[in-house]
Formats: sequence, structure tokens, C-alpha cells
Amino acid sequence: MDVQPLLIAGEWRAARESAESFRAIDPSSGEAIGPAFPVSGESDLQAALTSACAVADELAGAPPSGIADFLDGYAQAIDDDATTLVALAHAETALPADTRLAKVELPRTSRQLRLAARAVRSFAWTQPVIDTAAGLRAHYAPLHRPVLIFGPNNFPLAFNAVAGSDFASAIAARNPVIAKAHPSHPATSERLAELAHRALLRAGLPAASVQMLYHFDQCLGRRLAGDARLGAIGFTGSRKGGLALKAAADQAGIPAYMEMSSINPVFLLPGALAERGAALAQEFFASCTTGSGQFCTNPGLVVVPEDAAGDAFVSTALALFHAAPPGVLFSRGVLEQLDQAVGALRDWGATCLVGGASAGPGYRYRPTLLQISARSFLKHPAEFQREAFGPASLLVRTRDADEMLALAASLEGNLTGTLYGATDGSDDMAPLARVLRPRVGRLIANRMPTGVAVSAAMNHGGPYPSTSHPGFTAVGMPAAIRRFAALHCYDNVADALLPPELRDRNPGGVARQVDGCWRNDDLEPERSPAP
Amino acid sequence: MDVQPLLIAGEWRAARESAESFRAIDPSSGEAIGPAFPVSGESDLQAALTSACAVADELAGAPPSGIADFLDGYAQAIDDDATTLVALAHAETALPADTRLAKVELPRTSRQLRLAARAVRSFAWTQPVIDTAAGLRAHYAPLHRPVLIFGPNNFPLAFNAVAGSDFASAIAARNPVIAKAHPSHPATSERLAELAHRALLRAGLPAASVQMLYHFDQCLGRRLAGDARLGAIGFTGSRKGGLALKAAADQAGIPAYMEMSSINPVFLLPGALAERGAALAQEFFASCTTGSGQFCTNPGLVVVPEDAAGDAFVSTALALFHAAPPGVLFSRGVLEQLDQAVGALRDWGATCLVGGASAGPGYRYRPTLLQISARSFLKHPAEFQREAFGPASLLVRTRDADEMLALAASLEGNLTGTLYGATDGSDDMAPLARVLRPRVGRLIANRMPTGVAVSAAMNHGGPYPSTSHPGFTAVGMPAAIRRFAALHCYDNVADALLPPELRDRNPGGVARQVDGCWRNDDLEPERSPAP
Repeated sequence: MDVQPLLIAGEWRAARESAESFRAIDPSSGEAIGPAFPVSGESDLQAALTSACAVADELAGAPPSGIADFLDGYAQAIDDDATTLVALAHAETALPADTRLAKVELPRTSRQLRLAARAVRSFAWTQPVIDTAAGLRAHYAPLHRPVLIFGPNNFPLAFNAVAGSDFASAIAARNPVIAKAHPSHPATSERLAELAHRALLRAGLPAASVQMLYHFDQCLGRRLAGDARLGAIGFTGSRKGGLALKAAADQAGIPAYMEMSSINPVFLLPGALAERGAALAQEFFASCTTGSGQFCTNPGLVVVPEDAAGDAFVSTALALFHAAPPGVLFSRGVLEQLDQAVGALRDWGATCLVGGASAGPGYRYRPTLLQISARSFLKHPAEFQREAFGPASLLVRTRDADEMLALAASLEGNLTGTLYGATDGSDDMAPLARVLRPRVGRLIANRMPTGVAVSAAMNHGGPYPSTSHPGFTAVGMPAAIRRFAALHCYDNVADALLPPELRDRNPGGVARQVDGCWRNDDLEPERSPAP
Repeated sequence: MDVQPLLIAGEWRAARESAESFRAIDPSSGEAIGPAFPVSGESDLQAALTSACAVADELAGAPPSGIADFLDGYAQAIDDDATTLVALAHAETALPADTRLAKVELPRTSRQLRLAARAVRSFAWTQPVIDTAAGLRAHYAPLHRPVLIFGPNNFPLAFNAVAGSDFASAIAARNPVIAKAHPSHPATSERLAELAHRALLRAGLPAASVQMLYHFDQCLGRRLAGDARLGAIGFTGSRKGGLALKAAADQAGIPAYMEMSSINPVFLLPGALAERGAALAQEFFASCTTGSGQFCTNPGLVVVPEDAAGDAFVSTALALFHAAPPGVLFSRGVLEQLDQAVGALRDWGATCLVGGASAGPGYRYRPTLLQISARSFLKHPAEFQREAFGPASLLVRTRDADEMLALAASLEGNLTGTLYGATDGSDDMAPLARVLRPRVGRLIANRMPTGVAVSAAMNHGGPYPSTSHPGFTAVGMPAAIRRFAALHCYDNVADALLPPELRDRNPGGVARQVDGCWRNDDLEPERSPAP
């Protein structure tokens, strides 16, 4: 049987020692589709790492305009190839082709690449700082080492290891990327890698700057993640997988940016429920079931007062969940994990109000609502914070404001935390906001967490264990780029040896902090260091 | 025997279970001096951690002006107490009282605190970003958790765990500090902690915001460093100690900023040596022996061509080293480590040209120069990069420019890398600079690495294993503060619930990035989110 090639060392070539192969599965039917893809062994991984290392300095030294041309060219290629990409991604993930993939995720993917290109052209991500009196100039610079990126199952385009935000960020910082595609959408990843490869050659960048492997086992993954030749790791996926890779990277001193898990608590305050409970139920239902709930920012925990308005909210939500068809999940693995998580929550005492069961054909799960009292939740807060990735949410019923606060205080690190209050201001959101604030990366008011805008002011990050570092975001340029950068200082170094954005002359009008002020002009000659 | 109290939970109190105590040693005589200080056990550590956690939210919510007042007040108290502090530090470290402690290190310590205060008042460290179209606002914010700081032996004031750059940074970000003083200068640390404590109370901040322990064993240190209640760790010290603490912190997902080791390679190019070899020998000698060479940025590796000018440089340096008195080291431990490192370098084949032996009284070591050919170095590059902390340096002799490049390419991560070239430009520094650049945090031209200016454009950091993360600096405000911060995003949140620097009105003229531009005015009303 023919097995698809890998993108290694700048060319498409056969896997070296692939005894194994795999095929994509149409999750809506459970049937294998498309060609066979290789499971890589040690020699493929070593070949990718060696060739990435070999071009790291060249890529770091490439003109920023070349990098930006690549990112823009790749973005255009994705837009131009939209029909094919959407068809492939739809077949492999069962995500809605039109509403989700064509209209939202694909444009987001190309936009992210273009925003990265813009940050490259403006040098915004490098944050130049100049101290003329001390003769010091600093900026963020490439790592001069490869970045290993693990793509998740849930965004076949916008978080794809070879096209998504981590990819755009790592390349924008002029680091070679070794992309580990997610094996649940190999043909989509292959197509993206082809577009990336061609765009790379057109932009005149080293061909081995972008490589892609489809699959390898966890043991090899940990070994690769702990290889000291790597510059950094980007990962989006499960907590278990993320922690295993992080442990390997930590031992080798490799910065590992893991986005691992989040239940995204949503607090519905009494005034909001009294005012617009039915609308909130609709909003919650849509957020929890769109894309079959397979979002990092899925509202997996909803805190609802034990009062009449709370009961009404629950029964409206219940009706909506009940009437909804089973959601198609990405894989058998996702289905099994979800079923186990729902089972564990029930075992600890949560009541399953609706759903809680799989359905055929393929990998389907009924939209699921569980419920528990805050008293019970607070007896086992860690257990009740288990992520149930999919169209499922745990409702926690609180007797009063103090119980809501206690619940908020029991939460571990999350990507987001949301408060809904009455529009007339009658809900006092401040006390809850204070408790929630340090526990989440993004504090949201009156909208659901599932919309993650690509913005310079976004934080798609959060305290451990939602991510591995509270100071970084995986979405939003230029901040996301800085994960894959090193801080470089030049001390008394002549102008000719400086990178362009730190030189005296500033023809591009780069925003630089000079002696404490942001300015975009040339350096006055007397401020330049003695030769 | 009376044992000094600890600063725990906002008061000076006796150690709980101190079976052990220790006294400072005058390193110039080896005699114990001053009172006895406690070695803390588990219950002191737990008490400090619990009380730091208890005030973390209150401190995070304190007005920035209060934080800045504390930092400024503490700085002034240090300046006012200079005579006593310098006398204590001199007695405990044998560092020169006037030239080093009074004129350089103490003013640097208070200046660092004042620069941190300035960064707090200007909100510069928080980097506010506002996206009006998306309704998103982000900034760096307190961790809401304690920061554990381990002070080193070599800067009793400017890097003291209760007064130095890590301390100023962590407090500027409004995090409580648990300071682990270095046991080689306990009375200096006690005096600083007294000043800090009083300044804290005067500024109206929670009294438990600053705590200090003098000493505890490594096993307890690792347990504390791995306690998930911590927000972050700052450490300056040995590689072995840093890696052990990092491993503990990594397991708990705690960001640990370790500054661990560096040999700070210096490359002397042929033209520079021909032009001013004798002056360079003097400059090198001063940099390597000042403070008995006990600097993180000590020039521990000097690359010298094998030619007449190189030989002349070596013989001038040799004469200077030979004529110099033995340098007093901080402790018996430093002395033993240095002697072991010099012995190991000799065992691998380096020749000891001068020094290489301890001397009495106290902990003295003769200024030491070792030499090895680049050919031999390149056979065992890891072994020859062993740090010899103290007044010692390894000269590596190169036959040609290619060997210099190969040597540079063999180097692991360092804080600094230095190039000396001829003033007429006849040395081509570019190729070496290219190789060295990714391997160091600060690339220096024509001056020695030991001067670490406190500047916004400084990077006192570098690639692993010189530090634990290549993207952060331990010196220079506001960048050093950001190590102890979390990225916080506000999504559609009403103005009243925002922190001051993210609100519509900007009465303080804080520099904010609004829709891609740096500005310091109010937000136009139409740009504010809908209520």
C-alpha cells in the first residue's frame, strides 16, 4: 500500500523506517478515508531535527521582508485553496464546512499569518529598547534553533501545526519549525504543508525551514521534546500529553509553551438570569455545542443560583440540549475520553440531566448537562474540575453569593472566566471578578468564552495548569511571537553589526523605546555610541 | 546562646524549631563574627509561605503609588544607613568597603529600587494594550502569589534576596516576597530586612509582604520550591543548586528564573592585540580580579591568537596576575569549588601559568591563569567550559580565525560574549559576532563584561544553561519585573472593573498601545466598549 511522503529537509520524501501507517477516519461514519500516512520512527525525527538545526542560523539571518513575504504568500495560497482545504478538513473532522471552516476558521488562519507578517514588517514583536547613555541596545531576536510544534485535533486549520498561530509565531521570529500534525486530519495537514513549502521556496527562504511529520509514538515524542538542540516547544492538547512533553523539555532547559486544559467557568449572576435567563440559556447552548463543544474555551462549568430564575435557565437549557442531535466528535479517543470524564463526574455525585451517552454512526455524543450542588462540588473541587472535552457542561448550583465566591476561590488555573450580570448594574460583579481574576487568563463579561479574537490585546493563555506559563498568549500578534524569541542585548557594539531595528538610522520608522520614550525617528548622532 | 529572630508573618520572631544555628565568617581571617542566626526548619518555611499567601491578594490590590512609596522609602533608608550596611557587608564578605560597597554596590541597590518605583508609577512594566474594536484590553498583572527569592553570595546588597533586583522586581509587580538570604552575609541581610520591614509599614502595605529566612537545608529548599502555592522563583547562584530547584519548580508548574553560571568568553582579535595588547592585559586583569573575580560576568575564558601579539598579551597579563595578592573569597565553599574547578581544568590538560593555589589567612586564592590550545579545548569543549568562580581565567590559544570560529561555535549558553577589535576597523568582527550572538544574552564590543549597567536596555540573562529561560533579564527595569507577572486580558469588561491603566480615562498619561499605536491620552468615548 502506498504511503504518503513526509516533508523533511526541504523535500517530500518517504518515511525512512515506517513499518506502520494510518489513515484518517471520517468521524461521522467511523470509516477510514483517504490515503495512508506514515507513522514516523526515530530516523525521521532525527532527520527533521538535524536539517532544522542546519538552517536555523540562515533563517535567523534572513531579511524580515523575506519572512513577511512568506507569511503573506502562504496566507494568500490558503485563501486561494479554500475550497479544497475546507473539503479535506470537513471530511476529516466533520466540522461544518460552510459555517465553521469556510467562513470562520480558514479566514482566521490566513488572517493570523498576515498579522504575523505585519508584526514582522513593523518589527513590533522585537520591542527595540535603546539606552544611549549606557551604549546599550536590546530587542527580541530569533532563538537560532528549531521550534517543535504539536498541533491539536480541534482546529485543523487555525491551530494546525503547519499553519496555525504557533506556526505563524515561530516563523515570524525566524525559527525553523518542525510541525507534528495531528493524526486526526492528516490530509488537511499535508495540503497545508504543500502550500507552505511552495510559499517558502517562492520567498527564497531555506527549504528546510518548515518540516512536517504526521504521527509518532509518545515515547519518541518525549525523546524529541527533550532534545537540547530544540529552541522551544509549542503544544495544544490534553493535560496528560502536555505535562509529559513539558517534563521532557524541562529537563533539557527548553521553554515549552503548553496549552493544556481549561473548563472555563461561567458565573450567571441572579440579576442577569432574572433579566434574560432564556436568552442566556440559548447563548450557553450554542457556545457549548457548536463544533460539538470541542473548544479549549468551551464553557464546561456553569454556576447557576438555586432560585426560580436559575431553575428556569436550567430547564430552558435542558430543553435545548435535549432537542439537539448528537454531536460528532473528532475521534474514537475523544469520544472515549469524554465518556470517561462524564462517568467520573457522575461517580463523584453529579446528576446527568440530559445526554451522557454516545450515539452512532461514527463518533457521536449526546449534548450533555450534568448538575451538582456547590456544597458537593466544594467537597471534591479537584475531581469536579475534570475537563469533559466535548458538548458537555457541569452546572453548579449555588445557594448564595458567598457560595459563588467560595466556588470561584476553589478553581484552578483556566484560560477564561466569565461573569454575566444584569444590564442595569444591579448585580455586583466586583467581588466575583476579584476572586476570579488571578485564576484566569481572560476575564469576560456578558459573552461566552468560545470566541477567541485574534487581537494584540487577546490573552489565550492562563495560569497553570491551563498553560505552562502565565505570562504568554498563544493567540494575538505580536505577543504570541515573543514565546519563540530570545532577549538580545548589544553593549557598545558598532552600528554596522547591529540588527536593522537597533541601528541609528530608522528608515522604516520602527517604534522604539529610546531613553524611556517611544519614538520612531532616527537616533540623533550625538546619542550614538563612540566608534 | 542567643539566636537572631526571623522576619515572618510581618514580625521579627524566633525560629520555631531551630536546633541549629550558624554565624557569619570573616573571609579574610576565617574567624566567626557577629551573632548566631537560625537555620530554619519546615515549620518556619510553612509559616512564611502561609502568611505570604494570605496577603497576596491584598498586595496585588494595593495602589501602585503605595508600592512605589515603599520602594522609594526603602531606597532612601538604604542610602541613609549606608555606613552601617557597608561595614556589615564588608565584614561578612571582605569586599572593599569604599571602592566597591560604598561607591558602587550600595548606590546601585537604592537606584534599582528607585527605578522599580518609577516603573510602577509609570505602569511601564504592565504594557497596556487596548483593542477598541474587539473590546479587549490586556496588561501584565501581579501573580497574586508569593515569589521565592534565593540571593547569591556575591552581591550582599545589589542582589540580596531582600533588597536586590529580583526583590525589587517581584515587589514592583505587587507580589509578596519570601527572601532566602545567603548564609554568607546574614547580618547584612538582617539589617536590610529591618529597613525593608519599617519601610513597608510606613507605606501602609501588608506587613507580611516581605519575609526573610537566613538558611535552610537543600532538601527543604527543594520542597519549598515545588510548592504549588508559589507564583514564581528567582534564583542567582550555582548551576547545581539552580537546576535542583528548577526541577522541583518545574514539576509544580512554577516559573523559575534561575541565573546559574557563565564563563563569559572574551575574544581578542589580532588587530586589537597588535594595537593595544598591554592595555587589554591590564583591562582583563582588573576585570578578572576585582571583587576576587566573584562575578556572574567574570571573563572566565579568554581567546587569544597564537602569535607574537598574543604572546605579549599573555606575558603582560601573567606579570600582573603574578604580582597581585591572593584574592579573598566569600567562603570556604567558594574556595573549595574554585580549587576543584582549577584542578579539573588541569586534569583535562590545561597548563596553570600562575596561581592555582589557596593562601592564608582566611579563604584566599591566588589570581590564576590557565592555558590550553584550541585544538585540545575542542576535544573536550564541555569539560573546558567548567566555571571556575573566582579570580581565575582560562586562556585558549587559537592558530587562526577559523579556530576562533570553531571555538565560538562550541560554546554553550552564556550571559555575555565579548569581542575586542582594532579601533581602525581592521579586525573583521562580523563572522565571530554571528556565531557568538545566539549563544549569549549580551554581546559586547571592546569592553569587559563585568560592568552590568542597570538599564532598560540591559540583558542580564542568556540561553540555557546560563539561565533557565532565554527571554528574560534579571537586571534592568521594567523588563526584569515582567518575570513576576501574569498576562491578564479583559474581554468586554466595564470600565469600573478595569485596573487603572486600562480604563478609558488616562489621567496619568500612561503609555498604552491603542489599536496598534502607542499613545498616552484618554480613550475617545466612541472607542469604549458598550456598557
